[in-house]
Amino acid sequence: MQHCDTLIAPRWCVPVAPAGGVLEGHAVAVSDGRIAAVLPLDEARARFQPSVSIERPRHVLIPGLVNAHTHAAMTLFRGLADDLPLEAWLHEGIWPAERRWVSAEMVRDGTGLAVAEMLRGGITCFSDQYFFPEIVAEVATALSVRAVVATPVADFPSAWADNATEYLQKGADLVHDPYADHPLIATAFAPHSTLSLSDESLSALRVLADQLDARVQIHLHESAAEVEVSLRDTGKRPFERLAGAGLVNRSLLAVHAVHLTGDELRQFAEAGVCIAHCPNSNLKLAGGIAPVDRYLKAGLNVALGTDGAASNNLLDMFSEMRSAALLAKGVSGDASALPAAGALSMATIAGARALGLERHIGSIEPGKLADLACVDLGTPNSQPVYDVVSQLVYATRADQVADVWVGGRHLLDDGRFTRLDPAAAGARADEWRARIASASAIQ
Amino acid sequence: MQHCDTLIAPRWCVPVAPAGGVLEGHAVAVSDGRIAAVLPLDEARARFQPSVSIERPRHVLIPGLVNAHTHAAMTLFRGLADDLPLEAWLHEGIWPAERRWVSAEMVRDGTGLAVAEMLRGGITCFSDQYFFPEIVAEVATALSVRAVVATPVADFPSAWADNATEYLQKGADLVHDPYADHPLIATAFAPHSTLSLSDESLSALRVLADQLDARVQIHLHESAAEVEVSLRDTGKRPFERLAGAGLVNRSLLAVHAVHLTGDELRQFAEAGVCIAHCPNSNLKLAGGIAPVDRYLKAGLNVALGTDGAASNNLLDMFSEMRSAALLAKGVSGDASALPAAGALSMATIAGARALGLERHIGSIEPGKLADLACVDLGTPNSQPVYDVVSQLVYATRADQVADVWVGGRHLLDDGRFTRLDPAAAGARADEWRARIASASAIQ
Repeated sequence: MQHCDTLIAPRWCVPVAPAGGVLEGHAVAVSDGRIAAVLPLDEARARFQPSVSIERPRHVLIPGLVNAHTHAAMTLFRGLADDLPLEAWLHEGIWPAERRWVSAEMVRDGTGLAVAEMLRGGITCFSDQYFFPEIVAEVATALSVRAVVATPVADFPSAWADNATEYLQKGADLVHDPYADHPLIATAFAPHSTLSLSDESLSALRVLADQLDARVQIHLHESAAEVEVSLRDTGKRPFERLAGAGLVNRSLLAVHAVHLTGDELRQFAEAGVCIAHCPNSNLKLAGGIAPVDRYLKAGLNVALGTDGAASNNLLDMFSEMRSAALLAKGVSGDASALPAAGALSMATIAGARALGLERHIGSIEPGKLADLACVDLGTPNSQPVYDVVSQLVYATRADQVADVWVGGRHLLDDGRFTRLDPAAAGARADEWRARIASASAIQ
Repeated sequence: MQHCDTLIAPRWCVPVAPAGGVLEGHAVAVSDGRIAAVLPLDEARARFQPSVSIERPRHVLIPGLVNAHTHAAMTLFRGLADDLPLEAWLHEGIWPAERRWVSAEMVRDGTGLAVAEMLRGGITCFSDQYFFPEIVAEVATALSVRAVVATPVADFPSAWADNATEYLQKGADLVHDPYADHPLIATAFAPHSTLSLSDESLSALRVLADQLDARVQIHLHESAAEVEVSLRDTGKRPFERLAGAGLVNRSLLAVHAVHLTGDELRQFAEAGVCIAHCPNSNLKLAGGIAPVDRYLKAGLNVALGTDGAASNNLLDMFSEMRSAALLAKGVSGDASALPAAGALSMATIAGARALGLERHIGSIEPGKLADLACVDLGTPNSQPVYDVVSQLVYATRADQVADVWVGGRHLLDDGRFTRLDPAAAGARADEWRARIASASAIQ
């Protein structure tokens, strides 16, 4: 008999691995934070002596969900400025709130609340771009969740940095050290958008990213207005400015990409650029609907992201999977567009690939890190189960996640957090609300 | 002191009444199945001696949600035929399944499962159109939920009726008796669509509906294909055939109405026709996106429906509210389109109006029936609470419904069903799945 730390025996397992399909009556053995084996339950019982045995008879085990784009700390602005036209949302809602309230403490509390919400919904890895990224890394490490901490780059001053040189310097410090070989944290650069960076800043970023072999993620072509402003002010589309700086390459994650010409799409595909599709945020801010079915057919790797809670307002990858699949059908006029399995891949292995982590996470395969979510399909809304993957994407809510493991650590156990106090996170959020709302009333 | 049956003291109350707004620290007194008073908590304590007192300190009390369009029994086909092109979905998936499996027992078990899901998510009234409507009425009565039971009308034969004459006769029996003055059940006629009815059948329906003073609901302009087939076969659009039969009047509920010309929209508004908008179903079957923001501006009463679980696949009005509001913004290019309060109205008072029940349900006002839902906003995804209505529409899931009352009966008590056994409903659904799936494998 071979020892293993945990043996998980769900009714079904969807590995999202090249072998594919839905396994029934299989077990997953976890040791030293990694997946040791995926095998029929009777074989597992004969081969492994587990320290902990978990049986989940109504459940499906899936790879932990990967949220490829968010601004976690913005949970503290959730619902602060809804239903405003985009310009008013930015200029009267979000930007003034950020100028006044963003601080290390705000990022700490907002990220903590976001992690509670994301873990509860089966998200084991999130890619974050926000001010004070070192705090995001601290919170993620303390709560044992995986994160890609993308350090912001902009020409405008903020509470974190005054100008592009300082953003880049602080970012480089974080990318180098202390997270060069961290078990939970990866890093990247996150220029906000081409509108907030000069050509010189973009070039400096490119040189630094190349030196450090760092990935880059940027909001790109989120709205028609972004493209128009760029054309007006620089004579170029954001894509052209990015390409001109040498940043259109396989290290790039283009966030949103709602509006792409056929030529831009072809260049993205040739360069191996990845896309982070944020369907609900794009609708809420009226940016439009990215034709992801077309992107997938062109061979692009399309991941899914929630975006921040000021523009969604949930950090819920079940909602994003469902919306991505439904919108792809509704927009293309083809009810077979983006089937359920495709949406689940976007939320798992494609997300891992978009973050440069596909060798480590995104599927349930021996040797990969044990980032896992176990989902209860026994509730009335998920019954009966003809097709497990269809049920996951079209008829399951985030609250049905019963268990979450990150690197083998059992962070959510049958619906209960093991390391995190959601009530305390909520209470801190409510203190921020009281402070922010009373200041708004004074203005 | 005045006696009342139940005194409910939530943190917030959103009455969706003409006075409007969000009440904090108010209580709702319920007596004899009706709302006796809505008043500040201290006044309530001074005035009422309740049999049962319910405190919900993190919660918001709202009118019970009204699902203006579903086919409840189709929960048993949930996930049976997903991701197929529309024609294959109908001709190879759903219609063969209906021909083979629809029976009184199937409708009983499927409707039971649907009621479990809907009550769990705060739906206190649903408008159903399906075969064996007398069974739907029986199940709803047994489970104490409110329903509009719309009896199907078609020229094609089914397990319930052979031809339009029989559908109309059986429907008339149900509309007359025993549900003429039932405390929970209202009735209506539900011609399936103009494609499945001759002009003669439509005229016979109109005569009967007028005689019985019955409301009529019909799938109308759900897809471009429906309009094209009608034009090809009859030379008229479905709308024209309906108008020709005298059915475009204030008793009509047009379900879907994804595609309307400007002239059709104007005629609908003049006639006082109501619309049942089913945004997620319309996306999933690739019918398109109804421009409801335009409909609302034209003065139409637009309700929300889930449609059946074969085309959604959730019966979840929180998902429909969120999708309706987000799609209205994404499609119009205006982030201020269909604000949260508008989406909540669609799911409550507008739904009541669309079903002819606005004098009885749809808002929390003294004298109305006590159909109520209490929603927990204390979970991480709903924190912090700047704006209660925003939070309800953009950042709340159906599982956060803690309590449901229908006509004053407490059917869901802090997350637990009081009259319904969801596990038994799930087990029966699984038996149907086993039977249906094994037969499909044989075919």
